[in-house]
Amino acid sequence: MGFQKIILSLSNFWAERGCLLVQPYNSEVGAGTYNPATFLRALGPEPWNVAYVEPSRRPTDGRYGDNPNRFQQFHQFQVILKPPPENIQDLYLESIQSLGINPLDHDIRFLEDDWESPTLGAWGLGWQVWLDGLEITQFTYFQQVGGFDCRPVSGEITYGLERIAMAIQDKSSVYDVEWGPGIPYRELVKQSEWEWSAYNFEYADIDAHFKTFDHDEAEVKRLLSIASEPRRKLVLPAYDFLVKAVHQFNVLEARGAISVTERARYVGRLRALARQVAAAYLEQRETLGFPLCQKRPDFATQKEDH
Amino acid sequence: MGFQKIILSLSNFWAERGCLLVQPYNSEVGAGTYNPATFLRALGPEPWNVAYVEPSRRPTDGRYGDNPNRFQQFHQFQVILKPPPENIQDLYLESIQSLGINPLDHDIRFLEDDWESPTLGAWGLGWQVWLDGLEITQFTYFQQVGGFDCRPVSGEITYGLERIAMAIQDKSSVYDVEWGPGIPYRELVKQSEWEWSAYNFEYADIDAHFKTFDHDEAEVKRLLSIASEPRRKLVLPAYDFLVKAVHQFNVLEARGAISVTERARYVGRLRALARQVAAAYLEQRETLGFPLCQKRPDFATQKEDH
Repeated sequence: MGFQKIILSLSNFWAERGCLLVQPYNSEVGAGTYNPATFLRALGPEPWNVAYVEPSRRPTDGRYGDNPNRFQQFHQFQVILKPPPENIQDLYLESIQSLGINPLDHDIRFLEDDWESPTLGAWGLGWQVWLDGLEITQFTYFQQVGGFDCRPVSGEITYGLERIAMAIQDKSSVYDVEWGPGIPYRELVKQSEWEWSAYNFEYADIDAHFKTFDHDEAEVKRLLSIASEPRRKLVLPAYDFLVKAVHQFNVLEARGAISVTERARYVGRLRALARQVAAAYLEQRETLGFPLCQKRPDFATQKEDH
Repeated sequence: MGFQKIILSLSNFWAERGCLLVQPYNSEVGAGTYNPATFLRALGPEPWNVAYVEPSRRPTDGRYGDNPNRFQQFHQFQVILKPPPENIQDLYLESIQSLGINPLDHDIRFLEDDWESPTLGAWGLGWQVWLDGLEITQFTYFQQVGGFDCRPVSGEITYGLERIAMAIQDKSSVYDVEWGPGIPYRELVKQSEWEWSAYNFEYADIDAHFKTFDHDEAEVKRLLSIASEPRRKLVLPAYDFLVKAVHQFNVLEARGAISVTERARYVGRLRALARQVAAAYLEQRETLGFPLCQKRPDFATQKEDH
């Protein structure tokens, strides 16, 4: 099963069980958690079941395409189930069976691993899923997002698509994975890994990224202060500038431009912004009457037409 | 058929016929053409068959969510067939049949409509496809990209997913389209349309967007000048700054900050950058030996396993 087919299969699997399918975010993010379909929708009482791919950028993880297992861009398949169904673990095992991984033929372990994103003011109780010694998925029950308690909790399933493809295709290097018919992952990604590693570690303009960070931070505050009426607050543009500030921070960190002591200060500034955006979003949804509470679709454990 | 199911069906249709499926670009773009999977891969002799969704941002098209048929973000489904198969039109008709649109039951017209992107230095011969009086698709045979002749030509099929969903679901407003089970398009998009329209037309910081444009332009040139060896040129980071410069321009235009005479100058600056990136990409691919020419997958008109 090729890389692209794995994505199609997971999309079909979760859509058939009642998830919305949405698109990746159109700005650089380090994980699917940063997509507004997770960060914002995990807030408040509204039910929300969604799945999507997130091409994720982690500048510090670049290795110039030389490491078979570490890269500055990779793909997550993200599922949010809010509230989480009781059979979430069974659903997950079914989902990897739909990829041709028979749990009975493999060593599958759930290892406790709580998750925290200090920049997003988010944390949760969680598990890693290991398949024959390789971590392929992270499960998290969000306790807080943006510093606010999650009521209800969201269940987040994050599949590491590259790892899963390597396991299914029995490859020891991601670059040997088949993406689609006749085209290896190498062809689409290796030159890109070299170039972006060189950019992030050697050539990114440090002054410019610092200035952009400051500007992005100021924009979050300005955009949230424009209107007093909650539904007229520019929550999504403000969140967009937060996402961009986080990416500036990630590039600066890869570039070695942020010292250990400065790091905590920058993370604190981002967390403060995340809280402001989360507060504005919650206020706005309340003003709108939490519309998704009215037309709640039951999250089906049975397949249904989509 | 819901909005998300249309995307899955088109993805399956084109994957079964030998297309790679890739992901949207992780920065704001006005159309699928700006994804490197089109702009760069359309250059040079290598065969390339790909399909993807592109959430596309066109700030000037925002209407605060008040217009049933115009919005600042919409979704294209983009297919590139290079070289284009002779039966491309039949394949297209089959693809919309797979969505449940029987060409015999509808008035389907192909109207000549050549396409040009002055900012990308790209143009082609083309057709619009009209379904019962609504434009739902644009066909283009690229003649030039980045100012370079396309050899071979690429066939581009761009489906307007919102229009197709409105036709299939018989809705006169995009906001009434069903996205997925029980969730209307309105719920995911309407507040976002209001907020981004307000940002683009009223609150975007004009000075900051102008400065970012200048910086992005300078970065394209700097990144292309870093290495003399073609394979060490930072073509993809340079292209990324070009994409970002185009978005700055689009926001400034929506904000009414660019006069008619200035407009031509800005487009000229972008076109010059597009040409420089295209030249560097072509030189790099040549140095690498045009690798996709070797392992050319036949583009099948028969279904094949993917």
